[in-house]
Amino acid sequence: MALIRPRTLPSRSPTSSPAAKSSAERPDAMRVLIHNDRPEPLRERLLELVPDVEVGLCDSYDGLVTATQAFEPEVQFHIRFEDKPYPVEAVFDVPGLRWLGVGGVGVDHLGPWDPEAITVTNGAGVASEALAWHVLGSIIALTLKYPLFARRQAEHIWAWQDVGHVWGKTVCVVGLGHIGRDIAKLCNAVGLRVVGTRANPQPTDNVDQVFGPDGLHKALAEADYVAVCTPKVPSTIGLIDGAAFAAMKPGACLIDVSRGGVTLADQLMAALDSGHLAGASLDVFDPEPMPDDHPIWGREDVMITPHSCATFEGWELKALEMFADNLKRLKAGQPLFNVVDPVRGY
Amino acid sequence: MALIRPRTLPSRSPTSSPAAKSSAERPDAMRVLIHNDRPEPLRERLLELVPDVEVGLCDSYDGLVTATQAFEPEVQFHIRFEDKPYPVEAVFDVPGLRWLGVGGVGVDHLGPWDPEAITVTNGAGVASEALAWHVLGSIIALTLKYPLFARRQAEHIWAWQDVGHVWGKTVCVVGLGHIGRDIAKLCNAVGLRVVGTRANPQPTDNVDQVFGPDGLHKALAEADYVAVCTPKVPSTIGLIDGAAFAAMKPGACLIDVSRGGVTLADQLMAALDSGHLAGASLDVFDPEPMPDDHPIWGREDVMITPHSCATFEGWELKALEMFADNLKRLKAGQPLFNVVDPVRGY
Repeated sequence: MALIRPRTLPSRSPTSSPAAKSSAERPDAMRVLIHNDRPEPLRERLLELVPDVEVGLCDSYDGLVTATQAFEPEVQFHIRFEDKPYPVEAVFDVPGLRWLGVGGVGVDHLGPWDPEAITVTNGAGVASEALAWHVLGSIIALTLKYPLFARRQAEHIWAWQDVGHVWGKTVCVVGLGHIGRDIAKLCNAVGLRVVGTRANPQPTDNVDQVFGPDGLHKALAEADYVAVCTPKVPSTIGLIDGAAFAAMKPGACLIDVSRGGVTLADQLMAALDSGHLAGASLDVFDPEPMPDDHPIWGREDVMITPHSCATFEGWELKALEMFADNLKRLKAGQPLFNVVDPVRGY
Repeated sequence: MALIRPRTLPSRSPTSSPAAKSSAERPDAMRVLIHNDRPEPLRERLLELVPDVEVGLCDSYDGLVTATQAFEPEVQFHIRFEDKPYPVEAVFDVPGLRWLGVGGVGVDHLGPWDPEAITVTNGAGVASEALAWHVLGSIIALTLKYPLFARRQAEHIWAWQDVGHVWGKTVCVVGLGHIGRDIAKLCNAVGLRVVGTRANPQPTDNVDQVFGPDGLHKALAEADYVAVCTPKVPSTIGLIDGAAFAAMKPGACLIDVSRGGVTLADQLMAALDSGHLAGASLDVFDPEPMPDDHPIWGREDVMITPHSCATFEGWELKALEMFADNLKRLKAGQPLFNVVDPVRGY
């Protein structure tokens, strides 16, 4: 977490911002520019949460230089919305800008920056609750054989089939970060037992037993369902491999909401083919989009969602709310959360 | 609830039961016959729960007369397992038999009986937790567009698509019986608001607001998801009709786990076609099996499961556990639950 010291801002004369689009200009209020194609609901929500700021709006990439020159923001919040390069010069060349809040998680559109000159935060965690619901949905779908019934529906076949049950089962959360802890919370709420892994294996709410990275296979052996939600870093590429599948219980199901490449697809298919694994739900794949001739498409024990479960209706407002929390921290002189290291990129 | 008075049973001489298959014969213990093709796990579980009974086993329809003559059961528990008429004479003609426990819910295989001579109980509620999980699974599946993605998977199409979210939504449970109360419990556990209808609209655990039958349309208007789980009786046939759909919120989803005929399929399709309803999950239909040329098969906003969600792996043991609860009540002189009225059939 980085501390940005609040400082007394020079009061600008009205003539210094002739084109400011803010309708609520207050000489001493902090100036926050919102950059998005639908900025109005974001401004409205921000002013509900942090009333004493001056909000400027910009709704195009081409107009950002003019807008920043006119409004002279100290803080900018944006969610990417055009399919062309982000106008980074209109961010990093603004003399008074000290904090850039990015609504999404990725910051590769920004290129390098000097973290001494400007602080960048992202929306890490904005989708964690959505992903937790998808993990719970996948647990139920795989157990109640929804993928099989979907296939039968496509063939207009009504054929009775007994199904499994969820109660009394155990979930292993691989990676108890933002997402993993939300998965644990939701699974615990419905009465499932939760175990998991964490870089620093400290006691964690809603988790019965926490293992360190070297305890991964022991953690997997406990579980009927394995939810993978690690970041993709060198140590997690290929983490869910043949040895990991062998460590899982016979009949276990895999749910992957991490990044393509953490799970090895060929070894997953081998584990399914042998009958050791009962099913899998994949929201990520390596590569994406999944090649249309990949054999995993055709499996009735696998459900595939196209990296969609994190992008829910209304996520922009949730990202804005996280930014507003950080803005309150800035005003209170507290360290910001979700500060991005320009070298690591997260 | 019916009270069966415990009575002192005449101790039989060993010669009166030469063919008894019980391996744990105790002269004064209550004699319980388990009739199923896989009776051993049922006996094992029963003796764990109620140790002081004598358990006999019969694993065929043809052998039941001989088995009852030999074992002279006072109580019988069965789960149907053959595709031919049930040997009712080997139940109702047994002089000492006073209670017949049926593992499933239906009792139409028994024909009429005299409730003064013998008490029949069924397994009503044995599937309610399973159905509650299916309702929660359907809520998530419809919101996260699993049926659409299943269709795209069949076509090998990876196409990003934004999805809805579940948190903050309201569920209306139509029929707060065994199943409905389990649905309310599970939905409440994950933070959803629950309203519902009940013949007698008394305060109900996990339910924010309970409406009587005449408040159905008001209850429906509250909800983002409507779970239908009424019994099928004259007053519920066609209950979920065009007027009910019109009363629902725009964008609501229907989940039907009741019986075919409670929801009117043509009016459901009209409500989906108009865009008023966003989706539906049907585990029941009128008629079953669903005709293979029915247009509802082809809809990507409908998920169809073939009346399967109540029949989960291990349900027989759960039914046996309910029977064991009743057996403890019998031994304690308490009224039995789930007593079936031979006229109503439930």
